[in-house]
Amino acid sequence: MVGAHPDAAVSRADDRLAPTERTALRRKKERGHLDLDTVRSILDEGLLCHVGFNDGGSTFVVPMAYARVGDVIYLHGAAANRTLKTLGGGVEACLTVTLLDGLVLARSAFHHSMNYRSVMLLGTATRVTDEEEQLLAARSLLDHVAPGRGGDARLPTSSELRSTLILRFPVTEGSAKVRTGGPIDDEEDLDLDVWAGVIPFRSVAGRPVSEPGLPEGVSVPDYAEHHRRPTGPDR
Amino acid sequence: MVGAHPDAAVSRADDRLAPTERTALRRKKERGHLDLDTVRSILDEGLLCHVGFNDGGSTFVVPMAYARVGDVIYLHGAAANRTLKTLGGGVEACLTVTLLDGLVLARSAFHHSMNYRSVMLLGTATRVTDEEEQLLAARSLLDHVAPGRGGDARLPTSSELRSTLILRFPVTEGSAKVRTGGPIDDEEDLDLDVWAGVIPFRSVAGRPVSEPGLPEGVSVPDYAEHHRRPTGPDR
Repeated sequence: MVGAHPDAAVSRADDRLAPTERTALRRKKERGHLDLDTVRSILDEGLLCHVGFNDGGSTFVVPMAYARVGDVIYLHGAAANRTLKTLGGGVEACLTVTLLDGLVLARSAFHHSMNYRSVMLLGTATRVTDEEEQLLAARSLLDHVAPGRGGDARLPTSSELRSTLILRFPVTEGSAKVRTGGPIDDEEDLDLDVWAGVIPFRSVAGRPVSEPGLPEGVSVPDYAEHHRRPTGPDR
Repeated sequence: MVGAHPDAAVSRADDRLAPTERTALRRKKERGHLDLDTVRSILDEGLLCHVGFNDGGSTFVVPMAYARVGDVIYLHGAAANRTLKTLGGGVEACLTVTLLDGLVLARSAFHHSMNYRSVMLLGTATRVTDEEEQLLAARSLLDHVAPGRGGDARLPTSSELRSTLILRFPVTEGSAKVRTGGPIDDEEDLDLDVWAGVIPFRSVAGRPVSEPGLPEGVSVPDYAEHHRRPTGPDR
């Protein structure tokens, strides 16, 4: 595996995550998705994941940056970071990415909802110790934030890599959940004098703010000037 | 407590959360905040929280809507919802809200970062069984999404409340983390021909989409037409 593109290691009968007892939806099953196209598109559009794990008997949920390469998610941080050390120590974790697409306002309080796309993954992270894979992860983490950035920024030195902890988290067990569309009110509420509909929501980039003192001739790259998240098939 | 405004039950020597062993920051302590103004403003601006908990030996992280009233957070969902039943069963949980404010692009890969504001709370949820408090929670959950909505929508009937599970989660143990500002590059990287700066990020509302068939005379309310999140002192 080391050094190889993680995609090469993936072999599956089909392009879906296998359902498991603990990830199967028991209610509103129509919202569940196991196909990897949906899972990957949500992971690629998101910028932050929330990682949950047990540490000393307590559950913690920590927001983290991440990047997907094939069916591996890379996490990274300072080698002294407690969350990363715990995750890299073999504790089972849950990694969730949620994209909010809209506020769904029904006539009745009861039927208010949200449109969203989320992915929940269960698994155990492992430390990346091979320098070639560490560099692949570092570059992927940059490109995930802004495609092309991995080719522009100064990549980490060996010394910087030694003070960084990079983890790989598997995209093998989990599922996506997607809600779209308007509110679904009860028949008897449809004539109420209450507005109903959807307020779309998006995470959007503003005008980039350049650091003072950049060398002459360094201009704002296109990925900063016109930053857009990749959008998947469900958008 | 039942029926009373939750604020009434809060008594604190000062307006800060008490630091505890498991919530204290060990690194980058300057990012930590325990004052309730910061904690509350982040909770009020966010729309989704991520709740982590242990169920049958596995950790799960689930996105949920919420609302803050005083120092109580209300969660709600169908009475048959497994996550809510587990949380209401007395399991300790972690509730995290994260607002992404910007992508921080440094000259070096190593110093890339994100600007964000997050709140992590630890505690145990309890079921709300008093109908008066259930209605307060239902109205707060609407007003959290869009201030004023709680007065417009048809509030839940007793029958609807019986098929809903409403939980209260305490704002007592936890902390906020805030990163602001530009990248902090190493001195020797400042002359590199690499753009550096911040791409600001916000979650923004688009044009509301009205349901077809609304009764004549029902117009788009201001909170949908010009939806804005409340912004706190750190913005």
